[in-house]
Amino acid sequence: MLTSNEFKRIKKLHQKKHRILQQLFIAEGVKVVEEFIAEGLKPRYILADQSYDGKVSASVERISSKQLEQLSAFKKSPGLLAVFEMPIEKKLNYSRWIVALDAINDPGNLGTIIRTCDWFGIDQILCSLDTVDCYNPKVVQASMGSLARVQCHYADLAHELKGADQAVFAADLKGERFDEVEWPETGILLMGSESHGLSSELNSNIDRYVHIPKSKNAKAESLNVGVAAAILLSALQN
Amino acid sequence: MLTSNEFKRIKKLHQKKHRILQQLFIAEGVKVVEEFIAEGLKPRYILADQSYDGKVSASVERISSKQLEQLSAFKKSPGLLAVFEMPIEKKLNYSRWIVALDAINDPGNLGTIIRTCDWFGIDQILCSLDTVDCYNPKVVQASMGSLARVQCHYADLAHELKGADQAVFAADLKGERFDEVEWPETGILLMGSESHGLSSELNSNIDRYVHIPKSKNAKAESLNVGVAAAILLSALQN
Repeated sequence: MLTSNEFKRIKKLHQKKHRILQQLFIAEGVKVVEEFIAEGLKPRYILADQSYDGKVSASVERISSKQLEQLSAFKKSPGLLAVFEMPIEKKLNYSRWIVALDAINDPGNLGTIIRTCDWFGIDQILCSLDTVDCYNPKVVQASMGSLARVQCHYADLAHELKGADQAVFAADLKGERFDEVEWPETGILLMGSESHGLSSELNSNIDRYVHIPKSKNAKAESLNVGVAAAILLSALQN
Repeated sequence: MLTSNEFKRIKKLHQKKHRILQQLFIAEGVKVVEEFIAEGLKPRYILADQSYDGKVSASVERISSKQLEQLSAFKKSPGLLAVFEMPIEKKLNYSRWIVALDAINDPGNLGTIIRTCDWFGIDQILCSLDTVDCYNPKVVQASMGSLARVQCHYADLAHELKGADQAVFAADLKGERFDEVEWPETGILLMGSESHGLSSELNSNIDRYVHIPKSKNAKAESLNVGVAAAILLSALQN
């Protein structure tokens, strides 16, 4: 039985501060929970209400639907909620491609980028300190389990990029066409926020700017950052 | 002053049935509302609470923050909400590229696809009858105003594709590599849902299957459908 103290501690995991303090995070839904378990992450709790018919490969503790709703980050809980221990962070390996994100604050966008990186074999994301926390329940959800394989490393981006000896390719409308770039074997792909662009303090760290040309006469102002990242990641694979 | 009957009628626009009956839809946020007005859509109401400082180029009616919250589709209202008349649908023009969507039910995904189409100059989307309604407030929001320029046409997909004399390219893991395809000047790009794939009844209408190869050893199961559509749309432009 989940004690009321445990319940309260889990509920606090919706806040980044408490995730850091407890070194725990919430994942919801069978597919996501299954993937984390398969990748060796340690579940502290696996909780479900009576409606859940038990497909996950670990023992499930039953709680009331009302409790589950209170713990869920979603209007409608996916029916299964687990609390995992945060994996230990490995150091960034600059001998492989890294995606760097500057001030990406939409959880769905970060989740999508994590998932896309996983597809294209990139397992390291360098995030600015004002990028949304990768253990935010909505990021975890949108990443569809890929967060189990892709590590997000939070750091002062300008400082970190200065120290890196890989070429930094930044997505920016002023850049060259992405499909005319000869992408190197390794490097850093830097994406900024759709609304504010890249922080100016990063300028001195950028080696090349690349852009995704829009169609003649198109009036759209920008692409979604998850979409732009995907198009570029697809190109640098080929 | 908004009458209580008007308030009720607007609130009903969260339901597709009532959007169709009233031929009206809700758009929220300054940017989206501005774009619709700029593209010539007719606003029936433009509503904001006292906190809104009036940047939109049309006269705004003030309502209480509580009323605005009740009308908004979001946990936190973007502060401005407009009701627009649905534009009159034009017939599909098969002499240009068309994106066809089979059972895409996530509003964020449809919105992102609309926005990406707009960027790449595609202004027609053919949606299966079980694809989420493009006037769903969350689709409108995610499309960032691009819905003003990209038309979604809902129809029986199998029937519609049978009648089309353009080549149908379907995204499917069993297809050829998308980057080895010679894309024609016009055609139809068909995307299915991430979880269920393409409906089997569409098989006989498909001319070619294309896929986005994943990296060796990558364990991700699928790409987000908005991301996959974007990668393919980017390729067929070049």
